[in-house]
Amino acid sequence: MKNKHNLRVSVPTLRRLPMYVSILKRLKEENHKYVSATTIARELDFEPIQVRKDLSITGIVGKPKVGFELEELIKSIGNFLNWKNNEKALIVGVGALGHAILGYDNFKNYGLNIVCAFDNDKRKIGKKFHGIKIYSMVSLSKMVKSKKISMAVITTPGKVAQEVYDLLTEAGIKAIWNFTPTSLKSKEGVIVESVHLSQSLAVLTHKMANLNS
Amino acid sequence: MKNKHNLRVSVPTLRRLPMYVSILKRLKEENHKYVSATTIARELDFEPIQVRKDLSITGIVGKPKVGFELEELIKSIGNFLNWKNNEKALIVGVGALGHAILGYDNFKNYGLNIVCAFDNDKRKIGKKFHGIKIYSMVSLSKMVKSKKISMAVITTPGKVAQEVYDLLTEAGIKAIWNFTPTSLKSKEGVIVESVHLSQSLAVLTHKMANLNS
Repeated sequence: MKNKHNLRVSVPTLRRLPMYVSILKRLKEENHKYVSATTIARELDFEPIQVRKDLSITGIVGKPKVGFELEELIKSIGNFLNWKNNEKALIVGVGALGHAILGYDNFKNYGLNIVCAFDNDKRKIGKKFHGIKIYSMVSLSKMVKSKKISMAVITTPGKVAQEVYDLLTEAGIKAIWNFTPTSLKSKEGVIVESVHLSQSLAVLTHKMANLNS
Repeated sequence: MKNKHNLRVSVPTLRRLPMYVSILKRLKEENHKYVSATTIARELDFEPIQVRKDLSITGIVGKPKVGFELEELIKSIGNFLNWKNNEKALIVGVGALGHAILGYDNFKNYGLNIVCAFDNDKRKIGKKFHGIKIYSMVSLSKMVKSKKISMAVITTPGKVAQEVYDLLTEAGIKAIWNFTPTSLKSKEGVIVESVHLSQSLAVLTHKMANLNS
């Protein structure tokens, strides 16, 4: 059943679902029990029909007049997005950004379960950051297999990203969250999701220049 | 002249330009002097015509047979994206992510010049992180005016993001880089560029679930 739903879900829908969760959690804190698609739509400046379509994909059915039970809706979206998964993840590169990701507890609620970290800086190896131990790159392949790790976060400098990608996929990693500016040449059967911070910043600084001229 | 170019540039082009710079910098380190649009296209798996169009927007003209002079091309893209700007920026929220952004020197090369930080945690106020002093939220408006700051990075928890946005824009901030999961209700004349990390992660964890089933 779940699969039938999953096959036709678009990436834009996948990106909107966490936005709904963010609003639902705030409403829950404000002691609301129910929410309508119209309320969510108003908060985000979306069309109500858009919100209703997105939510129905998760399999939830609203009640006439009252809408959706808040708790149930949060759970439904979370299940659909696999946020309760038990997949283990590792992180390669414990610089400033890697450190931030290790320290950002919130990602655990979104299905990112980092169990170990890797770096090639000898001063870091063996230490623990935010409770996660840092290992040498040499033990990467062994660790992936022994701990059955399937996801990886890359927060290395861009110039070694492809090399790290190759190491990870050879070791059996199936999903990669790439924070480097490098566009990775991907293998079949491996999922890559990239966060290009410098690209996002480029949009901002360029528009800023136009605003001033 | 520059403005005439700027008006017709699309956001996807703005996002591709930093990807080219990343490749150009690597080629420069490998001691190359010239590069062709075809080489860049091959590296990124783009169509050469796409790369040629994007680069021409920055105003640069290649030489027949040899292509573009590397150094000149890097400079041309940087100028176009306003990476040498003197705009000052501030950051609100010095948690793990704010800390990482303050520590990530690389953003300076991309036109992000953070001169001060703000937080409401009394234990942080008055301290310096990565050379940047942290101030109380109370002094925000005064600092924006006295230091002539025009850009801001928001790395607070999502639930206070809109409130922070309102404070920033009332103080005169014109461009905002939003790292919170909140979709900000924006005012006219203010540019917002959002990095939704939980949305990016949602795409990854959902696809991962499908891969396994």
